[in-house]
Amino acid sequence: MDIDIKDYRVKDDDKINLKKIPAEYKGKLSKDECREEFEKQKEKLQELQEVLYADEGKALLVVFQAMDAGGKDSTIRHVIGPLNPAGCRVTSFKAPTVHELAHDFLWRIHANIPPRGYIGVFNRSHYEDILIVKVKKLAPEEVIEKRYDHINHFEKLLSDEGTRIVKFYLHISKLYQKKRLERRLERPDKYWKFNADDLKERELWDDYMDAFETALSHCSKKHAPWYIIPSETRWFRDVLVAEVLIETLKDMDLHYPKPDYDPNSIIID
Amino acid sequence: MDIDIKDYRVKDDDKINLKKIPAEYKGKLSKDECREEFEKQKEKLQELQEVLYADEGKALLVVFQAMDAGGKDSTIRHVIGPLNPAGCRVTSFKAPTVHELAHDFLWRIHANIPPRGYIGVFNRSHYEDILIVKVKKLAPEEVIEKRYDHINHFEKLLSDEGTRIVKFYLHISKLYQKKRLERRLERPDKYWKFNADDLKERELWDDYMDAFETALSHCSKKHAPWYIIPSETRWFRDVLVAEVLIETLKDMDLHYPKPDYDPNSIIID
Repeated sequence: MDIDIKDYRVKDDDKINLKKIPAEYKGKLSKDECREEFEKQKEKLQELQEVLYADEGKALLVVFQAMDAGGKDSTIRHVIGPLNPAGCRVTSFKAPTVHELAHDFLWRIHANIPPRGYIGVFNRSHYEDILIVKVKKLAPEEVIEKRYDHINHFEKLLSDEGTRIVKFYLHISKLYQKKRLERRLERPDKYWKFNADDLKERELWDDYMDAFETALSHCSKKHAPWYIIPSETRWFRDVLVAEVLIETLKDMDLHYPKPDYDPNSIIID
Repeated sequence: MDIDIKDYRVKDDDKINLKKIPAEYKGKLSKDECREEFEKQKEKLQELQEVLYADEGKALLVVFQAMDAGGKDSTIRHVIGPLNPAGCRVTSFKAPTVHELAHDFLWRIHANIPPRGYIGVFNRSHYEDILIVKVKKLAPEEVIEKRYDHINHFEKLLSDEGTRIVKFYLHISKLYQKKRLERRLERPDKYWKFNADDLKERELWDDYMDAFETALSHCSKKHAPWYIIPSETRWFRDVLVAEVLIETLKDMDLHYPKPDYDPNSIIID
């Protein structure tokens, strides 16, 4: 497949200007080619997940962040959906509860890190604590400023202890968001997805882009890279996210464990 | 579809003799008919899951129990796999940890009950505490005897508070287990699934059947019924489990919430 995932990976401390990064896919692959490839990718992902599960030595953490209507839910449904649900755990982080706010911002995150053998998926994550918290000034500036380092150290801990991390920013434009939000108002069975408060966040679009640029730049390390996914072209988004997951899992050097018995010596009565 | 799920439901306090209940499907439906029906069922399940998620008032707990190689993993992969992973949580209960054993047997179960809007799936469950624990005498007889009532009261609590419960015993014969275990020894990529300790459990087959019969009989209530699934015919097993889930979800009277805003009055800039 003619995709180089490095083209979408954020380099450590690279300056990011999201306005200059296309949210639509402009490459040579056709929709049909990508759909066909995606069917093959699903099977590869299922095979790799089984080895991860059997290996029991490592875990994979997949983080999704995006603006409202950026496609987090549908990406998870399309790309994570085909995996074996018994080895997969999706955590959707909402506004922290009183109980969670009584702890440091990484406490509830740590509690939801996948165990070895599992794929954990975060729909929103600890990055909210340097995104919405920064934009809406929910914590003092000097507290937020320290969080980039805290996140990097925390992700290094996970990585050193066997949890591979990969992070996706699903990139859309402000105009595209408008279209997607309007769609929710057109269909009664989608009304429940619309929240009038989302429009207040939308007014802060530019501030959010600034906060994302800083987060992407400061927290994309070799052991926990960010990928910026052009997410207005959904069939390309799915293929690209799947490709990153496949290459990441392949790079984890997973193996079926050697049996601690001799398969030829066992007799079942 | 020509399936009456009531035929497979255990009646409250009914005497059960598993030896007399076929583990193979002997009915009129063909494999092709069932495969075709299953494709339609997947879509129905996805639709119902979305309303459950949007409704936010109720949860569904699905329990799977079986002997080793009974097909818990593959049933979950086939029937739960097609659901949206973001609204689904599979918990595989293993032998309790030291930390878990320091609590009552329902403590770790309660901690894993799905929140409202979710489908929770238990691969093994609190029933182990009246199955393996009974067969292997891991707790005093008088403690185990009280657990049937404790389970019934606990499941009634869940039900009254909004968690619907449905339980599946995947029924296979001792001969069928032999064949399935032998298959694991034939394929190097399945060696990891074989555990020599499983053969010790196999020797206790009749004791396990007795324990299952008691559990099924004592703990199949209207609000939390057991279904005995003929699981040697896998294409029928999948269709029957899916049918029970569909009818259970339909019976839960789920609705999309009414919007708390006027969809026609919203303007997105």
